[in-house]
Amino acid sequence: MSKHLKVPEATIKRLSIYMRVLKDLERKGVEVISSAELADICGVNAAQIRKDLTYFGEFGIRGVGYYVKELHFDIRKVLGLNQRRNVALIGVGNLGRALASYRNFSEHGYNFVAAFDVDPSKVGEALPSGIPVYPLSDLAQVAAKNDIEIAIITTPAEAAQGAADKVVAAGIRGILNFAPVQIQVSDDVKVKKVDLTTEFDNLVYHLYAKVR
Amino acid sequence: MSKHLKVPEATIKRLSIYMRVLKDLERKGVEVISSAELADICGVNAAQIRKDLTYFGEFGIRGVGYYVKELHFDIRKVLGLNQRRNVALIGVGNLGRALASYRNFSEHGYNFVAAFDVDPSKVGEALPSGIPVYPLSDLAQVAAKNDIEIAIITTPAEAAQGAADKVVAAGIRGILNFAPVQIQVSDDVKVKKVDLTTEFDNLVYHLYAKVR
Repeated sequence: MSKHLKVPEATIKRLSIYMRVLKDLERKGVEVISSAELADICGVNAAQIRKDLTYFGEFGIRGVGYYVKELHFDIRKVLGLNQRRNVALIGVGNLGRALASYRNFSEHGYNFVAAFDVDPSKVGEALPSGIPVYPLSDLAQVAAKNDIEIAIITTPAEAAQGAADKVVAAGIRGILNFAPVQIQVSDDVKVKKVDLTTEFDNLVYHLYAKVR
Repeated sequence: MSKHLKVPEATIKRLSIYMRVLKDLERKGVEVISSAELADICGVNAAQIRKDLTYFGEFGIRGVGYYVKELHFDIRKVLGLNQRRNVALIGVGNLGRALASYRNFSEHGYNFVAAFDVDPSKVGEALPSGIPVYPLSDLAQVAAKNDIEIAIITTPAEAAQGAADKVVAAGIRGILNFAPVQIQVSDDVKVKKVDLTTEFDNLVYHLYAKVR
């Protein structure tokens, strides 16, 4: 498997779907799955899956299917998800505190190493999970020292753009934005806006859409 | 468009992808999109989109494409997302408080009408958003009176299954589970486990996967 191979954006999107499905199968104890079954669960056709995976090498076993755990691992590697990443939290409110104590993040390779706030009464305390809270003005310095690659913005909407500007100035290239507002950044920075209404929608259409 | 038409699960999954993409396009002010462009963004082929949409009627305009706003609206309707739904919050911790004050939910048709906790010191207060906090033992009664269709579980992991049992006993058929644990329910209840690590993964592979 080559680290230098470039694949189309559409393939990357489907790989992330395969990955989520495989993660789920692995958790349920499924060891092997046929390409037809995998395709069915993912909502694509089997030829598409086979084609997508040929970018990365030989994964399937003819007449058997795919080894769930192995394929899950290999797709994570292709997607750059096999390394630990240091994360900063920007905005120490209810949501920030909740995210900082969410154990799953660490298990998946995301280390919360520092939190930041503009409120002097919050600075200097440590969150229950042991993460220190710094003044936002120290972001660049703390980020460089701790090799922070990702910032999570959980500020109020009106403070999110200012926070994002500081994140970008600190050389951090990935932002998860939980604030309910669009933020603008330069082209070399990736922003993922987290919209929890999508989770509701997904539940509701599984409850109320007419599925045969 | 028939409310009684049943469509395959795989089509429903793709419709939810189309919906998210269309929502994004609508937010960006795009009015019309060709089926080839829409297919490309969604990571499927144009024939698949056309086939999926034939379950519901005539959407496209030959030689033009799709009207973004209209198609978005119609897919939401097919998926059962065109009605307001009453929601209960189970577990008044940091995450629960954060979700209850998240304005986007209401804008998307989800009304938080009641919160529940087993901690007597939390019962009787109202959350900042005005939502009353009841004892968990009152769930069935409050749910029936307020026509609650969805419960959000934000309890600690060890309390989640007990909370889910009470939700099911109260006749609520949809659960969004934010607790980091799998919960077991009867077949007529739908559970969606929210795993925020997926959002991290999505950001990271857009940052680090090799995309051409």
